[in-house]
Amino acid sequence: MNSKKLQESIAEDANLSLEKVDKLMETMVDVMLGQLKDGTSVSFQGFGAFEVRRKAQRLSVNPLTKKRTIIPPKQVLVFRTGNTYKDKIKDLPRNNE
Amino acid sequence: MNSKKLQESIAEDANLSLEKVDKLMETMVDVMLGQLKDGTSVSFQGFGAFEVRRKAQRLSVNPLTKKRTIIPPKQVLVFRTGNTYKDKIKDLPRNNE
Repeated sequence: MNSKKLQESIAEDANLSLEKVDKLMETMVDVMLGQLKDGTSVSFQGFGAFEVRRKAQRLSVNPLTKKRTIIPPKQVLVFRTGNTYKDKIKDLPRNNE
Repeated sequence: MNSKKLQESIAEDANLSLEKVDKLMETMVDVMLGQLKDGTSVSFQGFGAFEVRRKAQRLSVNPLTKKRTIIPPKQVLVFRTGNTYKDKIKDLPRNNE
């Protein structure tokens, strides 16, 4: 499901205009990114939390050529599923089976 | 930043009522979970995508006691950061430094 379909579903279910949903989701992503940039994690109740983690510089070795490359330090976005949701999804049968 | 603070920030930035933001975010999580349950991944433009992955049953060995335990198969929620955003965040200095 892409962004557009997600927005259409939300607009329909929440009985709000597509413009409002679009504006709101855009604002949501902006606010989240602003927080994450500052190193603040962002939680969604019952769903999980986003946080930015630093990865240290590391040495990568190509197993075929044995060539060594330095991977510079970087920051990555990680999502940690909340425990409530983790338990909910764990044993879930798929509807498409 | 918890859910409540996130909602307040969004309401302020998007100039919408807190009730609307609350309803919309709740609907958003519901729609996403509904899709994920069916094994459909959900993308957020420019941010990333959520998907449910199956983990096969595995044998876990406690390294101290050598006790073996079977971990039953389960489903987990994973978030994959989009490439646009991955590049954006990679070299970002933190504001709090």
